[in-house]
Amino acid sequence: MQLKGLVAATFTPFTAEGRIDRDPVGGMVDALVASGVAGLYVNGSTGEGVSLTGNERRQMAEAFVEAVSGRIPVIVQVGHNSVQEARELAEHAQVIGADAISATPPTYFRPASIGLLLDSLREIMRGAPGLPFYYYHIPRITGVDFDLHALLTQAATDLPELNGVKYTAQSIHEFQACRAHFAEQFDLLYGCDEMLLSGLAAGADGAVGSTYNFAPGLYRRIIEAYRQRENEAARELQLLSVEMVQAFVRYPALPAQKAMMEMVGMPVGPPRLPWRDLTAQEKKTLEGDLKKLGFFEWRD
Amino acid sequence: MQLKGLVAATFTPFTAEGRIDRDPVGGMVDALVASGVAGLYVNGSTGEGVSLTGNERRQMAEAFVEAVSGRIPVIVQVGHNSVQEARELAEHAQVIGADAISATPPTYFRPASIGLLLDSLREIMRGAPGLPFYYYHIPRITGVDFDLHALLTQAATDLPELNGVKYTAQSIHEFQACRAHFAEQFDLLYGCDEMLLSGLAAGADGAVGSTYNFAPGLYRRIIEAYRQRENEAARELQLLSVEMVQAFVRYPALPAQKAMMEMVGMPVGPPRLPWRDLTAQEKKTLEGDLKKLGFFEWRD
Amino acid sequence: MQLKGLVAATFTPFTAEGRIDRDPVGGMVDALVASGVAGLYVNGSTGEGVSLTGNERRQMAEAFVEAVSGRIPVIVQVGHNSVQEARELAEHAQVIGADAISATPPTYFRPASIGLLLDSLREIMRGAPGLPFYYYHIPRITGVDFDLHALLTQAATDLPELNGVKYTAQSIHEFQACRAHFAEQFDLLYGCDEMLLSGLAAGADGAVGSTYNFAPGLYRRIIEAYRQRENEAARELQLLSVEMVQAFVRYPALPAQKAMMEMVGMPVGPPRLPWRDLTAQEKKTLEGDLKKLGFFEWRD
Amino acid sequence: MQLKGLVAATFTPFTAEGRIDRDPVGGMVDALVASGVAGLYVNGSTGEGVSLTGNERRQMAEAFVEAVSGRIPVIVQVGHNSVQEARELAEHAQVIGADAISATPPTYFRPASIGLLLDSLREIMRGAPGLPFYYYHIPRITGVDFDLHALLTQAATDLPELNGVKYTAQSIHEFQACRAHFAEQFDLLYGCDEMLLSGLAAGADGAVGSTYNFAPGLYRRIIEAYRQRENEAARELQLLSVEMVQAFVRYPALPAQKAMMEMVGMPVGPPRLPWRDLTAQEKKTLEGDLKKLGFFEWRD
Repeated sequence: MQLKGLVAATFTPFTAEGRIDRDPVGGMVDALVASGVAGLYVNGSTGEGVSLTGNERRQMAEAFVEAVSGRIPVIVQVGHNSVQEARELAEHAQVIGADAISATPPTYFRPASIGLLLDSLREIMRGAPGLPFYYYHIPRITGVDFDLHALLTQAATDLPELNGVKYTAQSIHEFQACRAHFAEQFDLLYGCDEMLLSGLAAGADGAVGSTYNFAPGLYRRIIEAYRQRENEAARELQLLSVEMVQAFVRYPALPAQKAMMEMVGMPVGPPRLPWRDLTAQEKKTLEGDLKKLGFFEWRD
Repeated sequence: MQLKGLVAATFTPFTAEGRIDRDPVGGMVDALVASGVAGLYVNGSTGEGVSLTGNERRQMAEAFVEAVSGRIPVIVQVGHNSVQEARELAEHAQVIGADAISATPPTYFRPASIGLLLDSLREIMRGAPGLPFYYYHIPRITGVDFDLHALLTQAATDLPELNGVKYTAQSIHEFQACRAHFAEQFDLLYGCDEMLLSGLAAGADGAVGSTYNFAPGLYRRIIEAYRQRENEAARELQLLSVEMVQAFVRYPALPAQKAMMEMVGMPVGPPRLPWRDLTAQEKKTLEGDLKKLGFFEWRD
Repeated sequence: MQLKGLVAATFTPFTAEGRIDRDPVGGMVDALVASGVAGLYVNGSTGEGVSLTGNERRQMAEAFVEAVSGRIPVIVQVGHNSVQEARELAEHAQVIGADAISATPPTYFRPASIGLLLDSLREIMRGAPGLPFYYYHIPRITGVDFDLHALLTQAATDLPELNGVKYTAQSIHEFQACRAHFAEQFDLLYGCDEMLLSGLAAGADGAVGSTYNFAPGLYRRIIEAYRQRENEAARELQLLSVEMVQAFVRYPALPAQKAMMEMVGMPVGPPRLPWRDLTAQEKKTLEGDLKKLGFFEWRD
Repeated sequence: MQLKGLVAATFTPFTAEGRIDRDPVGGMVDALVASGVAGLYVNGSTGEGVSLTGNERRQMAEAFVEAVSGRIPVIVQVGHNSVQEARELAEHAQVIGADAISATPPTYFRPASIGLLLDSLREIMRGAPGLPFYYYHIPRITGVDFDLHALLTQAATDLPELNGVKYTAQSIHEFQACRAHFAEQFDLLYGCDEMLLSGLAAGADGAVGSTYNFAPGLYRRIIEAYRQRENEAARELQLLSVEMVQAFVRYPALPAQKAMMEMVGMPVGPPRLPWRDLTAQEKKTLEGDLKKLGFFEWRD
């Protein structure tokens, strides 16, 4: 499987009381498909996947797969501290018709070697032998930070059924080497929205991120400008993305983005603990800051 | 609830194929009770609790509660990246008759403030309002490292129903201040076996640890020597504990201890991924090293 | 002062016995100037500046300033755990005719706030009031990792005499925002050679690095390709840089590069403790690996 | 050399303008000697040794050695990012009649192995072959955190002329094993004042710390109580030390302690950058908090 274009890492809607809320999923998915995103990445960091119970994760995966109904690929993130539970979630994802799965490594106990990491991934993949699998590399959160080039080198021999990697790190040189040397075998998706232009310059074709939910138009213009070799225009557009991120990271980043979803007409409710929601005042200030940037014209 | 003496953090038995194995639990529990431990701490780090599925965690909690059958208190560890799942595990623990619960904070997303941590704990406690709750402080693994004295100061006002803390860290001065200033209100259990004597000197009455499974006699002698003011003898005995830990941390620490359980007649099978089991040769070398220390006489 | 193009972070030559060696400086400087580098950055991380005594740092600064003799700008790095000593080194740099100075913050004790960092820099700058000053941001080594955008915002008011920053980090989005918002006021030099293309895409005009000593031609071609909007060619050339770095970071990185200097005819001797030199066999293997990449044609 | 009892890590006096100030040294040293401390540790972390220029470090070392005039041993800390400069400082310390030297490892570049660390220490020791040398282990600051037991095991063979270690870490079990196994060969001084009782329980005979400057009487009573097997009394006294540290770490810890020196009649002026001094109000509040603890009766 090879994904190109912008994959939105979806948010999980909650009710005001904190229960998962399937109701908004249909409308949100229609809007995302209409906005032209190339796929959905469900139950990832953006989706607070780890904050859901196993049962809730299954329900949300189902809700998204059903709502999408084959229009674009849906990748279900199944990473869990329990490799066994991740495997069961993978199995469920295959049963409900997801197009691919992805997983972070266990993080309470971290794999002590690349070999043990690959063993863990292999075990998860056994749950969904028919689905492409993307390793989710996000060392800032997981603390699992093996050299990815060494990891892919070993995977090429020991886990060739690995489909690719969601690479959420800033080491563009590592990403570039991985992409250049393993493009035939592994699909590398870049995962830092605010550095997308660097990713493109290094050869990225596909990207997964949270801000592709509410600003896909901006990023499409970045990609288009880069392809047209309008390098200065691409830079100026990327700067808008950087400034948007600067605006919302003044607050807890995930809840701030959930607030932004509401601002663009896709309300997804509050975050779950251990996050706190933004106050009404914070949301208002953020909305004003975003307006100045032109944020509300970035969906198309 | 106030726990005194040595609480064994139990291991979870697995079959050679990696399934949880309830069979050995009865015999192991009888042996632990007979060895005089003051309680059991189930599904903690030692028990690979996070490596179990939700269903498996429930089964193991049941197995231990049933096997103990009220002879000593059983604390069930319910910490999970999903606060909601932790709450459901707490609820289950209360239903099956556990004596107390305990939980690590969420770690994939970490609470950004003491307030958000207490909010998360409060939510978990709602699942088992009738059970004492111990916060599990183990910053080396969780990365959640708030000043515990500040945390208890705030909890005294905002979460007075907190019962205590399993304190697994080396900052004896922090432990001592917490114990001295909050002894009336919160029960503090010390969690570093190889520093138990420091814990005692700082006022610890209770301790939770993995090596209390296979060497309770050694630690009882440390406690007894300290109480008899035989400070040199206490030090020499503690040195044996330190040397035992030095012997097994040459290998992956958890699997090495599972191997040690087999050596003393309480086989608990291999570890789960992402751990690797020790090789037969490693086990043999470890056994020889332990024998030289006198390890096989430390159960009584 | 505004620096454009490639600034070589020079190596400090030592004799086999470990004494500083001024002899090779003249030839090396002539070769570097001939190779077209835009400036020299002396006594930085590459130059093992902190491994020299105060007296030796002064001697090396003099040696380079004299050898260059005004052909290109020379920046002398004066960072030191002692702000006072850094100030004295700055004073010396001004006396001997350096063109600019630069400094890391103190790192044994780290500034607790941006304000204290700026206070420390101001104190250093007092030693050389006539020289432009570049803050040396390299958080991976110093552990001083303030948000650089916030730092420049505060410096614009509190330390407007700051000339710029040598930015050695991978957070391209931060670099881009700093460059876009402070280009009028502060000169930002990019410092990760293996990510130069990302830096260019984000707007970098100048760059400082160690590999510009022995492969300036390669990097000039990257810059030229990027300017000609030959984005694929730029990427392919950057990949060669990445592969060169991959080749030498298999060994201790600084000594490996000193060995590479010898390979291209600019011997600089062994490193100082706490580095170890590469073995003869390691050097031979490295040379072979580099040859395959085409390394020996990258000077022009 | 074997040091027993409390060694005060001295503060460096500065004038209000920030110049080193030899004037107060004589009186301060007389007071310290009179208070019964067993030795002085000069130019360490407490003494802001790394914040002094090489010349200033030499002057302060001289001032202390002269003022002590042989009454108690003086250890001069010579650690520096430049191993060569550390060696020259060691040479100077021997010339002026210091009794011992000590050094942190280089920290800007950190030794990549125990072997390279020992090589660095050996090089420093060459500057003062006649003086006992203590390795200064303080990983929280230096980031150099080799297993100390492994380090001493290797030093026993490769650097037997090492005299001992100033062990400033909380891993009491490591300290205990080092002391038990290497007591004949290496002198281990414990370096966490607020955990002194743990150190004693683990076998410490000597300790180095900053609070021994202004509260030696309190610590002598801890030692005496422990020796008299009055374990509860020892604990209560240690709690006072913990509470004193809690009181001053609400502020920048080093400047707060310099303020405390003034409170007890040994003024040492402000700290150097990158520290900030406490405000007058902060000093007043701190003084009030300390008074409540009984701090002003802890000198004798």
